[in-house]
Amino acid sequence: MFDRLRAQLIRNHQLQSDMLRGYFGLEKENNRVDEQGRLALTPHPKAFGRKMENPYIRTDFSESQIEMITPVFSSIDETYDFMETLHDIVTLELLDNNEYLWPSSNPPILPNDEDIPIAVMNDPEEDRYRVQLANKYGRKRQLMSGIHFNFSFDDEFLKKLYSVTNCTDSFKEFKNALYMRVARNVMNYRWLLIYLTGASPVFSRTYLEQCAVNSEQLDDGDSRFFPNMNSLRNSVCGYRNEKNLHVSYDSLEAYTRDLQSFVRTGELLSVREYYSPIRLKTGKGKGVFEELTESGIDYLELRMIDLNPLYKIGISIETMRFVHLFLISMLLLEDLHFNEKEQKAADLNHDSLLFEGILGKFYGGEEENVTLQEKALEFLNELKVMLELIWSADSSLLRILEQEKEKILEPKNHFAARVKKDVQSSSYIWYHMDKAKQYALESKASGYQLKGCEDLELSTQLLLKAAIKRGISFELLDFQDNFVLLTKGTQQQYVKQATKTSLDRYSTVLVMENKVVTKKVLQRHGIRVPDGEVYHTISDALKDYELYRDQPIVIKPNSTNFGQGITIFAAGFSSEDYRRAFEIAFRHDRTVLLEKFMTGKEYRFLVMGEEVVGVLHRVPANVVGDGLHTIEQLVHEKNKDPLRGKGYKTPLERIELGESEIMFLKSQSKHTEYVPALGETVYLRENSNISTGGDSIDFTDNIPYSYKQIAVQAAKAAGAVFCGVDMMIDDTSEEASDTNYSIIEINFNPAIHIHCYPYEGKNRKADERILDLLFGSISSNLEKKVRV
Amino acid sequence: MFDRLRAQLIRNHQLQSDMLRGYFGLEKENNRVDEQGRLALTPHPKAFGRKMENPYIRTDFSESQIEMITPVFSSIDETYDFMETLHDIVTLELLDNNEYLWPSSNPPILPNDEDIPIAVMNDPEEDRYRVQLANKYGRKRQLMSGIHFNFSFDDEFLKKLYSVTNCTDSFKEFKNALYMRVARNVMNYRWLLIYLTGASPVFSRTYLEQCAVNSEQLDDGDSRFFPNMNSLRNSVCGYRNEKNLHVSYDSLEAYTRDLQSFVRTGELLSVREYYSPIRLKTGKGKGVFEELTESGIDYLELRMIDLNPLYKIGISIETMRFVHLFLISMLLLEDLHFNEKEQKAADLNHDSLLFEGILGKFYGGEEENVTLQEKALEFLNELKVMLELIWSADSSLLRILEQEKEKILEPKNHFAARVKKDVQSSSYIWYHMDKAKQYALESKASGYQLKGCEDLELSTQLLLKAAIKRGISFELLDFQDNFVLLTKGTQQQYVKQATKTSLDRYSTVLVMENKVVTKKVLQRHGIRVPDGEVYHTISDALKDYELYRDQPIVIKPNSTNFGQGITIFAAGFSSEDYRRAFEIAFRHDRTVLLEKFMTGKEYRFLVMGEEVVGVLHRVPANVVGDGLHTIEQLVHEKNKDPLRGKGYKTPLERIELGESEIMFLKSQSKHTEYVPALGETVYLRENSNISTGGDSIDFTDNIPYSYKQIAVQAAKAAGAVFCGVDMMIDDTSEEASDTNYSIIEINFNPAIHIHCYPYEGKNRKADERILDLLFGSISSNLEKKVRV
Repeated sequence: MFDRLRAQLIRNHQLQSDMLRGYFGLEKENNRVDEQGRLALTPHPKAFGRKMENPYIRTDFSESQIEMITPVFSSIDETYDFMETLHDIVTLELLDNNEYLWPSSNPPILPNDEDIPIAVMNDPEEDRYRVQLANKYGRKRQLMSGIHFNFSFDDEFLKKLYSVTNCTDSFKEFKNALYMRVARNVMNYRWLLIYLTGASPVFSRTYLEQCAVNSEQLDDGDSRFFPNMNSLRNSVCGYRNEKNLHVSYDSLEAYTRDLQSFVRTGELLSVREYYSPIRLKTGKGKGVFEELTESGIDYLELRMIDLNPLYKIGISIETMRFVHLFLISMLLLEDLHFNEKEQKAADLNHDSLLFEGILGKFYGGEEENVTLQEKALEFLNELKVMLELIWSADSSLLRILEQEKEKILEPKNHFAARVKKDVQSSSYIWYHMDKAKQYALESKASGYQLKGCEDLELSTQLLLKAAIKRGISFELLDFQDNFVLLTKGTQQQYVKQATKTSLDRYSTVLVMENKVVTKKVLQRHGIRVPDGEVYHTISDALKDYELYRDQPIVIKPNSTNFGQGITIFAAGFSSEDYRRAFEIAFRHDRTVLLEKFMTGKEYRFLVMGEEVVGVLHRVPANVVGDGLHTIEQLVHEKNKDPLRGKGYKTPLERIELGESEIMFLKSQSKHTEYVPALGETVYLRENSNISTGGDSIDFTDNIPYSYKQIAVQAAKAAGAVFCGVDMMIDDTSEEASDTNYSIIEINFNPAIHIHCYPYEGKNRKADERILDLLFGSISSNLEKKVRV
Repeated sequence: MFDRLRAQLIRNHQLQSDMLRGYFGLEKENNRVDEQGRLALTPHPKAFGRKMENPYIRTDFSESQIEMITPVFSSIDETYDFMETLHDIVTLELLDNNEYLWPSSNPPILPNDEDIPIAVMNDPEEDRYRVQLANKYGRKRQLMSGIHFNFSFDDEFLKKLYSVTNCTDSFKEFKNALYMRVARNVMNYRWLLIYLTGASPVFSRTYLEQCAVNSEQLDDGDSRFFPNMNSLRNSVCGYRNEKNLHVSYDSLEAYTRDLQSFVRTGELLSVREYYSPIRLKTGKGKGVFEELTESGIDYLELRMIDLNPLYKIGISIETMRFVHLFLISMLLLEDLHFNEKEQKAADLNHDSLLFEGILGKFYGGEEENVTLQEKALEFLNELKVMLELIWSADSSLLRILEQEKEKILEPKNHFAARVKKDVQSSSYIWYHMDKAKQYALESKASGYQLKGCEDLELSTQLLLKAAIKRGISFELLDFQDNFVLLTKGTQQQYVKQATKTSLDRYSTVLVMENKVVTKKVLQRHGIRVPDGEVYHTISDALKDYELYRDQPIVIKPNSTNFGQGITIFAAGFSSEDYRRAFEIAFRHDRTVLLEKFMTGKEYRFLVMGEEVVGVLHRVPANVVGDGLHTIEQLVHEKNKDPLRGKGYKTPLERIELGESEIMFLKSQSKHTEYVPALGETVYLRENSNISTGGDSIDFTDNIPYSYKQIAVQAAKAAGAVFCGVDMMIDDTSEEASDTNYSIIEINFNPAIHIHCYPYEGKNRKADERILDLLFGSISSNLEKKVRV
């Protein structure tokens, strides 16, 4: 029936594009290490919550082995981005403890086998299984780590295919047969994939003694290898069953029957122990026999892919695209018998590749003396012909092929060769530690970003990362609105723009939205607000001109609206200016406030629950001199900070040296070539907005508690759970009194990223605090479960 | 010191205007009667909540006697409006039970004394006091009803006055002395106020036997009167202590000392029994001695004013203005000795007025044979001179004087004479019953209005009236925003636009505000929504033109915004129309929806809590023929409905016969002179908006329960406590199925007035339901208290 498929594909455009669609998922393990490259013996970080409940970040066999799992996505890009996000999240958390993610499939420096901590799962079945594995394989072998690539075809494609093939089986039977066919071909051609993805050629002498003893060693004395071997993990020294277990791939029934028989006879502890390069999976997850029989195959899991230390997350997006293409080709290829004889040949090719490399002997063909390289090129050529025939329009597919072909023609270009070459000029441990540290720096520099979602507000990106970290899943209900649904078990929370949640009552928000009402509410609670008047008409306002003409005042519309329509008169003003200010304000609201302009500096108190999570003060764009560099050079240097960018995609904005800045320098009799003295601060703008290069300074630990109490009281007066309290403070070295502060606004949608990534100061983890309040804190959740 | 006051007033402009300011309050009692004018023996309506807790609506001595109390206001207009509101609220509630407010101070048809129900207060002290009163005075006399007028001068005025008089007393002493002076003058001149406000000249033969026996009777045989007597209530037959009790008005100390002594000797049951025409009160309320001594006098209570059946609420605003002026003059008048001799003379003048009228003898002057009329004119003239001297600019004050002078010069023009004249051509009972019914109709016609607050949204006016009805007090925090604070005991609720409350979570509102999210949420809960697409760019939308060109569709912006930016294509449309519709929609939001236009009719389900409070359907402006009148005449007739007005101040809008309507008639080959047949409905518009004269039809009882269940499910899915669910229904005679309905929107700020005052159907009391949910239902509150 699949030959007819190819014929169909050539004609049917819809089928062509549908075949390229599919669902993707990645899983990967990384061992945790300390700064020296030794396996970290610390417990799995608490920040990730309960191992069994976090769907994204868990432990594998060992407590030191972190497993990261993406959800299912309909594109490779999304899958890649999510895995990068997981990698970033885990890396940043480990950094706090000076730990790193070990970027190789082969383990780092290991202690004695008995000192490797088995993961504590607090689940009797899971715990027992791990002990059995430890006893059977030894703990070291279980630390071999890799990438699992999950894939299924698009359901619409399968249904169309089912209908055009006029198959008499049920759709479920058709689908099972289709995936079995792919699985057979994958088993047969797996040597090629291992060649193209293998990236674990060297290993530590602390690994399994029987492997270390038989291997060769590099000059550093600690690094071991087998000549030609590109993937220790896929070899007998890796993560394999004790002996090759052959199960039938003829049909799903035969496959499950054989597997069941191995479990029954005790050759396998459970079906999970069947370390096949490919697994047949159901949507329900664990691939248990009954589920497979009942629901059929939902997706395939490729398990032979190494962690690639050449790439931050262990796999490149190009490799993912090729693996996808490889899987498609497995469906398009001629079907084959895959009985005992063919399975043995496939095993031989697998080992031939590992021990002899791509120039090794190919087994199972008609001809003698064919190399794997020749077979690989033959396969790629056949694939190319198919691609040109079916997807002639899509040149990107051919480009993927060309790239892989290069690795076959030039074995020194394939991943393992590149890794080995670099290891030789360093050592197994230091090469990988350098990579680990370099990737950690990259993760840190973009710590405020959620990969693939950089167009979301920073506050939302941070919240979602924090959610992923503790295993709360999310759905983007409306990207443009930053509207998400967070789900943890049966708990669901709708959140817009990070701080608009179910915890605040609608009426509370309405109070904060209305400055007149906010002031009334605060005043009644004995909290200081600026004196002033409320006007509903310009003529009423004009009558009071004489009263205020000599005072510093602010004129602003009643509804809070990103500072629009506000005029500040710091000194005297004409009646014409006064009128114009009211005209502008009345354009934004039917009610306008006149307030005395408060002295002091403005501080933003971020209140969450009944706690001040962060206090921030903004200062205008500036540079601090070193007595050597010009203002221009200092600006250039300051702009290198990865927190600074353009267009609000970063926590801070780059400092410009535009007309405004030059004018402002001029007013201080300075220019861009001026060299400020050591420690001299030169301001480049009058206004302190972050959007014009201003700095955000964290004052959380530098402000008397009495002001924080007032901020919390203000939030409580308004009834707010999440809010930003803007307070003018005369002098932060004094305690708050009845006269030295004033609250000028309460913001019901405070930005959180400014408190997490300030120019100066600590990350106040406001993102985490939101989740604590919405779902309960991590520690309370851990405790709750223990008690149950 | 007060002579200096007048001198000061002539010079000091600020003092002049401040003296005219003050604080006002009204209290009044009305007996409840049945349609025949018999005292209602039913219990005080439950709708008013607990008698002791409702600050506005209580019972007085009898269960049948409703007392209405305004808060304190700084203007007569506000006070008047609030009393009218109370009157309207009580009237409408009584109408449900075919009861009326009896508009005379003299009682209606009474049963035997022992059958008059004493108010049940569930308070031992209150209950005992009422029984003592019943025993001492008889129950009938206690049913005499009247108006109490509370007044205090503006505090700023008193303080300024205090400072200009260079008084050596404390401010409190100064204030007490000032109010004592006013009280003395009021006692002395009270006969004049009784003449000008008395309005109870006739009474029922069922009143006190000793009074009925001695009186004369009108032709109807049931109506009794005493010649010349204009206020039975102020006479010995009225609400008086058994004998004249004279207390000293020399000082507050002397006053309280004398009163205390009467209570001690048992002449008075308590200070409350001292039925003086004026009472000295403290801000704390009950005028208890200790409070008076401690806090001093805060305001004065005038108690001799009759209910005036000539005016709906029992007093005219002109009378209130005169009483205010009278009280001011009592401060400006020469001070007087007011000892035993003067008090007796004042008593004599009081009785002289009642038994001889304004031509009766004046007691206590130097001259003999002076009439009260002469004295009254002398007083008014003296007052006029003062007004001209001090407030020469304010002609309105003189106009008030002129009006009252008229009544003195022409006794037949004074209230009592006018009442008596009209009673003579009817009967005491029927004259007052006619008035009661006429006023009830007026209350009903403006039932949706909160007097003095007609510029608030109707929904807010209704909510506030409902709040007042059950004794929940309110403050208008922002009039323009319809933002109020409701307070009941320690419970406070901020409410904006009637349905934006603390009961809805912020996230819930955000879900409803976003149509894309709303649809997702509803779909996941298995609720039908229109199929459609979501676009973020016009170019994406244009690509789908071919897909939809032959279908009826709606194009609308994502955020709900009063229907702005929506285009409906009921039939085919050009790609140019299609593009334009998207351009319009994208002007309102960055996200635009295309939806299949649903068949069926649209119904608004008002959901509150988990209940459908009302279901409404709108039909376009129309008239139904009678075979006699033209369309124009029918429109004219239909527009007479008091529910119809202009500019959204009424639940329905008047039907216009403008260009649109005439065009639409033309399209049906009709014109405004056409006479529709009996029962023929002629539509005047295509659209069903209420704003263009459409009718609102209540369907609450005419729609299968299954649709209501869906509406409640939809509200619950969104998490909403208050919302309007807009549902398209194919056929309301069928139960809801999976295919015959669709929810097109959930509105988080549903109007409630449309369900309270529909064109056709019942008042669904959505206003009451909001309060039930915010503060607990009346019955649950009643129960709760009983249990405690």
